[in-house]
Amino acid sequence: MRFVLVAGTTETAHIEGISAAGADPALMAHTPSADLEIVEYGQPVQAPVMPVSPTGCPTPAVITRAVHELTEFEILALDAGLVRPTSAPTVALEAMPGRDIRHPRPVDSAADTFEAARQLGRSLPDDELVIGETIPGGTTTALGVLTALGERAVVSSSLPENPLALKREVVDEALAASNLSAGETADEPVKTVRHVGDPVLAAVAGMTIGATTTDTSVTLAGGTQLVAAAALARHAGVDTALSVATTSFIADDETVRMNELANDLSLDVTVTDPGFHHRNHSAMNPYIAGEAKEGVGMGGALALADRAGISMADVREQVVAVYDRLVVDESL
Amino acid sequence: MRFVLVAGTTETAHIEGISAAGADPALMAHTPSADLEIVEYGQPVQAPVMPVSPTGCPTPAVITRAVHELTEFEILALDAGLVRPTSAPTVALEAMPGRDIRHPRPVDSAADTFEAARQLGRSLPDDELVIGETIPGGTTTALGVLTALGERAVVSSSLPENPLALKREVVDEALAASNLSAGETADEPVKTVRHVGDPVLAAVAGMTIGATTTDTSVTLAGGTQLVAAAALARHAGVDTALSVATTSFIADDETVRMNELANDLSLDVTVTDPGFHHRNHSAMNPYIAGEAKEGVGMGGALALADRAGISMADVREQVVAVYDRLVVDESL
Repeated sequence: MRFVLVAGTTETAHIEGISAAGADPALMAHTPSADLEIVEYGQPVQAPVMPVSPTGCPTPAVITRAVHELTEFEILALDAGLVRPTSAPTVALEAMPGRDIRHPRPVDSAADTFEAARQLGRSLPDDELVIGETIPGGTTTALGVLTALGERAVVSSSLPENPLALKREVVDEALAASNLSAGETADEPVKTVRHVGDPVLAAVAGMTIGATTTDTSVTLAGGTQLVAAAALARHAGVDTALSVATTSFIADDETVRMNELANDLSLDVTVTDPGFHHRNHSAMNPYIAGEAKEGVGMGGALALADRAGISMADVREQVVAVYDRLVVDESL
Repeated sequence: MRFVLVAGTTETAHIEGISAAGADPALMAHTPSADLEIVEYGQPVQAPVMPVSPTGCPTPAVITRAVHELTEFEILALDAGLVRPTSAPTVALEAMPGRDIRHPRPVDSAADTFEAARQLGRSLPDDELVIGETIPGGTTTALGVLTALGERAVVSSSLPENPLALKREVVDEALAASNLSAGETADEPVKTVRHVGDPVLAAVAGMTIGATTTDTSVTLAGGTQLVAAAALARHAGVDTALSVATTSFIADDETVRMNELANDLSLDVTVTDPGFHHRNHSAMNPYIAGEAKEGVGMGGALALADRAGISMADVREQVVAVYDRLVVDESL
């Protein structure tokens, strides 16, 4: 098994009220680079700060790192359009940072990214890949993709109050900018990403397409962004079993009916509840309040911990350990 | 502990008779990229073939991979001037591929590479780094560096018969092309690399300089190339303890007096003998015949196995397992 983290950016995240993946808009550009460093090293190395939401919710990279420290799974980080450098080792896919989806061609490199990711997914020696993402603004581009493909147009949010109406407005503008209507690119996954997606979705879908051609089992680790990537793979003709491993915070999100979305696309869904309500700790309380919910492969990491027989109580203790180390570093 | 592999290229390797790090000159450019993939994945992924010498000696990446499978140390691969793509995740240092050292400025990017590596070495959270290399032609550039610094000018070879006279001729031409004489750049490590070195030496020396400033323990995993990197660090003012971990094949190489070289530079040397003479196997026999000897951190990996209480008999079994998998893949 290899844990693949696909990191990139879309300027869609700069739209006010869209994303909570950074304390402020200037820091948000560093979030995916910092997330990779936290998972790889347990702390930011080159990135200036630990990513937190505007209200202080720590990045889900903390949870994925905690599970990594308990289970030592192998990590492969992919650069699918980072704008800030990272000291985490990455394989660079042929990807440029994504523009705002209200631009007519926000992802010019979509075809190249699909192809580079497909080749990598086909070439890796593993029996199983677990694929997660880190891209601020990614649920809005996911909504763009689901809408253009003609799938159920609902996505989750890193904010406690899902700004779904705002996202739909942005997606409507995005479709209009590309002269597309909902459902119009149903058989064209590359075109879909090029016009209303982001480079991470191209990379996740491409990896999934490549891996499944060599009978590698694929688990998409995350929420509605990963479902959108699965939709791209399905619309590219992938008809083998695909799994999604997500958190209870996504499953409990009433603005998105995860089971219906997953049923539409024949995805097996595993939901893992880390039991954060059993602790009163600032690393976990924001999740109880509905922040973050998912990201950086968190749901997949929790599922791997469960599969390895590690209790969620042990996961929570390790989350505290990782968080406390990070907070000490920040305050130095 | 983190196992750092610095990979790059120098056109010096194209000089006939200099390097055995590839079956033929065209394939040699792929060697460092393939070595990283073998250590990371156990097989080439994007690289076209497993690197072997012209007579079929498998790359020392096989041994490092075998130990990695037994001990699961963390790997950080650095791109210090690769010319062929790799599917192994890397951190790209500010490095260009090195030109033939008979060019007046073979490593234009020397200062940038030193600085990027220094910053990374300083920033990593680890208590201990073990640093190895993969760069065909690297012993000749190492000889250039040792000569220009005024150190004992002897280096080992990946060939059974060390072409030391040829290397000295190349280094003399290199010094002449840069209007330098032996010992002239003793206090200028960056200038030394710029004129007679390679980008991997800049990166290893820079990492060492950065790591030692934060009291990270550094073990240089390899032979005379790593000693040359240590010399650069010493000439940059590093006066803390530095260790070299190498193989018995280097220690037994009569063309290079490893202990004298190490004494000159106050380096602690650990020599590990993998006991390849106990087996009659095509993965190991070429080493007994004096081929390869070191590379891809082999000596450091063997020392880590020893420290972890793993017997060399178990290491040998794993070498056979890794090699057999590679050979099956190649013959498909």
